[in-house]
Amino acid sequence: MDTKHFDNIFNPKSVAFIGASNNLITAGTPLFLSILTSKFEGRIYPIHLKEKKMFGLDVYKSVLTLPEIPDVVVIAVRPSILINVIDECGQKGVKTVIVITAGYNETGDEGREKEKKLISMASKYNIRFVGPNCIGVLNPRNKFNCTWFTYTHDPGHLGLISQSGSYVTQMLPFLDQYGFGVSMGISVGNQSDIDAEQCLEYFGKDDNTKAIAMYIEGLKRPEAFLKIAKKVTCKKPVVVYYVGGTQSGARAGTSHTGALAGREELMNGLFKSAGIIRATDSEMLYLLSGSMSLLPPMKGNRVAIISNSGGPGASFADSAQRADLVVPEFSQKLQDQIRSVITDIGSSRNPIDMTMDLNLKALVKILPEMVIESGEVDAIMHYGFFGPIHYGIKLSYLDKEIRPDIDIEKELFPVYKKAAEEFALMSKKNNIPIICASFHRHFDPCQTVLQNNGIPVMPCPEKASLVLGAMWKHTLMQKNLKDSPKNNPTF
Amino acid sequence: MDTKHFDNIFNPKSVAFIGASNNLITAGTPLFLSILTSKFEGRIYPIHLKEKKMFGLDVYKSVLTLPEIPDVVVIAVRPSILINVIDECGQKGVKTVIVITAGYNETGDEGREKEKKLISMASKYNIRFVGPNCIGVLNPRNKFNCTWFTYTHDPGHLGLISQSGSYVTQMLPFLDQYGFGVSMGISVGNQSDIDAEQCLEYFGKDDNTKAIAMYIEGLKRPEAFLKIAKKVTCKKPVVVYYVGGTQSGARAGTSHTGALAGREELMNGLFKSAGIIRATDSEMLYLLSGSMSLLPPMKGNRVAIISNSGGPGASFADSAQRADLVVPEFSQKLQDQIRSVITDIGSSRNPIDMTMDLNLKALVKILPEMVIESGEVDAIMHYGFFGPIHYGIKLSYLDKEIRPDIDIEKELFPVYKKAAEEFALMSKKNNIPIICASFHRHFDPCQTVLQNNGIPVMPCPEKASLVLGAMWKHTLMQKNLKDSPKNNPTF
Repeated sequence: MDTKHFDNIFNPKSVAFIGASNNLITAGTPLFLSILTSKFEGRIYPIHLKEKKMFGLDVYKSVLTLPEIPDVVVIAVRPSILINVIDECGQKGVKTVIVITAGYNETGDEGREKEKKLISMASKYNIRFVGPNCIGVLNPRNKFNCTWFTYTHDPGHLGLISQSGSYVTQMLPFLDQYGFGVSMGISVGNQSDIDAEQCLEYFGKDDNTKAIAMYIEGLKRPEAFLKIAKKVTCKKPVVVYYVGGTQSGARAGTSHTGALAGREELMNGLFKSAGIIRATDSEMLYLLSGSMSLLPPMKGNRVAIISNSGGPGASFADSAQRADLVVPEFSQKLQDQIRSVITDIGSSRNPIDMTMDLNLKALVKILPEMVIESGEVDAIMHYGFFGPIHYGIKLSYLDKEIRPDIDIEKELFPVYKKAAEEFALMSKKNNIPIICASFHRHFDPCQTVLQNNGIPVMPCPEKASLVLGAMWKHTLMQKNLKDSPKNNPTF
Repeated sequence: MDTKHFDNIFNPKSVAFIGASNNLITAGTPLFLSILTSKFEGRIYPIHLKEKKMFGLDVYKSVLTLPEIPDVVVIAVRPSILINVIDECGQKGVKTVIVITAGYNETGDEGREKEKKLISMASKYNIRFVGPNCIGVLNPRNKFNCTWFTYTHDPGHLGLISQSGSYVTQMLPFLDQYGFGVSMGISVGNQSDIDAEQCLEYFGKDDNTKAIAMYIEGLKRPEAFLKIAKKVTCKKPVVVYYVGGTQSGARAGTSHTGALAGREELMNGLFKSAGIIRATDSEMLYLLSGSMSLLPPMKGNRVAIISNSGGPGASFADSAQRADLVVPEFSQKLQDQIRSVITDIGSSRNPIDMTMDLNLKALVKILPEMVIESGEVDAIMHYGFFGPIHYGIKLSYLDKEIRPDIDIEKELFPVYKKAAEEFALMSKKNNIPIICASFHRHFDPCQTVLQNNGIPVMPCPEKASLVLGAMWKHTLMQKNLKDSPKNNPTF
């Protein structure tokens, strides 16, 4: 496909929107509002028969009366008038369209007939389109977002390609909480024209996209997918969450996007051949791909575990081994160095367990530096760097009159913040993955500092192991694909 | 064991604390502060050689000078003086002690010798004790908490027994975020005296405890554990997270609490015979047990899926089947009823997919009532009930002058809140498990309302399937244990 259409979709200079109104309950309105709230700097043309002004903008009665041919038209009208609207787009000379409107292949025979008519009308004018039955696209770098939810994070490096609209737009606050910035996101819907395979190829070539998350209910062109994915995974990790592998999942997918699911074993073989990581659930899809969009690659599978608490340390260790990572017992030399920093009751073998020692400098600076310099590991899993959250809660309960001198937040937080920033720099400077876990995450401002500086913070230790395990798998697969591209079976 | 000691531990009328000071960095101070901030109503005696007052309370120089024999003494002194302190407790007539102090079995040969001396000194005076190397206990109903973190939630029904202190105390904010209230929690540490098996027996008999979460690095008395667990799981679910099954996990456990881990297959057999659910990670330990502490039991394994979005609906369906649940295609009669409520583009087969229809009443009232009344399912998995979070974000970005008339938070939130309360009541009234999923959870005030009314909200759809799957497994295991108690192999 001509990348011009993708440029129109992700980097439009002008956008027309049909199907929003001044009523917030109109289905298209929240999507239109997203264009406004993302502060899109191009020209915006709301189209409506009756409204005069919409959220401060002049309204046009039809695409035909617009002062220019918009790069892209977003359409969220009811199904009965969609064909006419596409016809007008064609007459105007519009080349690229996003069809939000639903009620096609996914609804059965009648819908399939309607979808054929839509395809035929679009091809009459050589219009390329996303959807139908999708929730739009976003490109934070161009401040363009026509999906349901507002994008609030800085532009990032995670690409989202999804057959479910929710799995693009509803994830935006979730990804923000985890500090994962998006490069581009697209909800492909029924894929009558532009499909996930084409998007994967386009995202593969995008330098801002360092990892790709895909939600799949069924593949339209499995052979093309395999060919494209092989190329892309040589450059960057692709994580897929596939729900069509069970009878119940396949039936749900058909009712949702008209997708035809492939058998579990076939799809697993396909993903494996393509060098793709398969996520076990929707949350892991984003935790894996988001972390991979931030971290440097795993050059080996030896991990150091640094914790100020034994339980999470043991959880790291047990789950790391299950994820095909190695938790080497440190050399005597390194253990002696570690022993000079931790207390008598701590452990230096790996996991390093500081046992609730409150020595922040040891936890986030001295010990990580020691294990990095030793060369004995390829990554660090880290637990226990929480800010003064516990003191904060306590002090909010304590009578201020009892200890008026204590203001932990003001006294300690700047110390923690600086330590978090330096800790994050250590990963970048040494090109070594550092990943944290915290049960408090974004409720603890320290975690936000870590995340915003490129250190993923997982909701529990075991998920950090899964992330590093997947990254190591990706390293091995890349090596395998590069060494022997012909060895992999084709679909 | 005499339950008097457990009563002293969980329901003391008077507590002495040795090892806190006015310095927040002293290891014992945060624990002591937790007693104060939990508003404990019994008598509190801080003990310190030099301090005169501690956070407003009179300080005593020794246990010996206290005006009464305290029900329990919490000790967080350095190891070198622990034996003397225990000796003084014995002289005073103290019967129950919690030893926070670490540096015993978990540190090697020298530590093992010290632990023997501790045991011997305690038994000289018939003192029963928790620990050493633990983080204390909590009982929110008695407003007693001597662990590190503050407990902020209402008292609940989840019992926590853990060989890791962190997995009791650091989870308190996490459990609060998920709306899971705690009945009692205990960090058993090295278990030189009181062990996890005894705690399990005690928690099993506690009517306020409706589900039990256990973190285990190794069992001290596997035969006793099996015998006790079998009895307890007949009454209430017990979920275990065990980290000793890999070489790395076992080594970490030994360094942490001196635990001796059992082989993976042996432990799996033991858990199975005991009717125990094994959690795959620490997060699932709490999500499973917390949800089970709230929900009515699964009487069968047929689930209805109600969603306003196809992707999460398909995720429910696929993961439900993988969790041994059944997603039955609804009868024509029920589908006709459903069709009368949803739009043409929705799906009625199961999952019910409302396809971003904004009809709140259909989503949380009419459709759930329909599927409950049909008798075709035993539980409901629900997605899409989010409050006006997306509008809220948008409006905070929109210029107030453009639409000064809109105040979504004030206009819509009361409607959502009432709907959430009624929805939660539906589960109680019909004695049928309803579980939700939301990627926004506590960032969306609607989820908090659901949680606080007894409907668990999982961080993704697949975890809701895992919860209901585990509950169904528990139902089957209970039936099996009751029908044929002799059939189960002993350890």
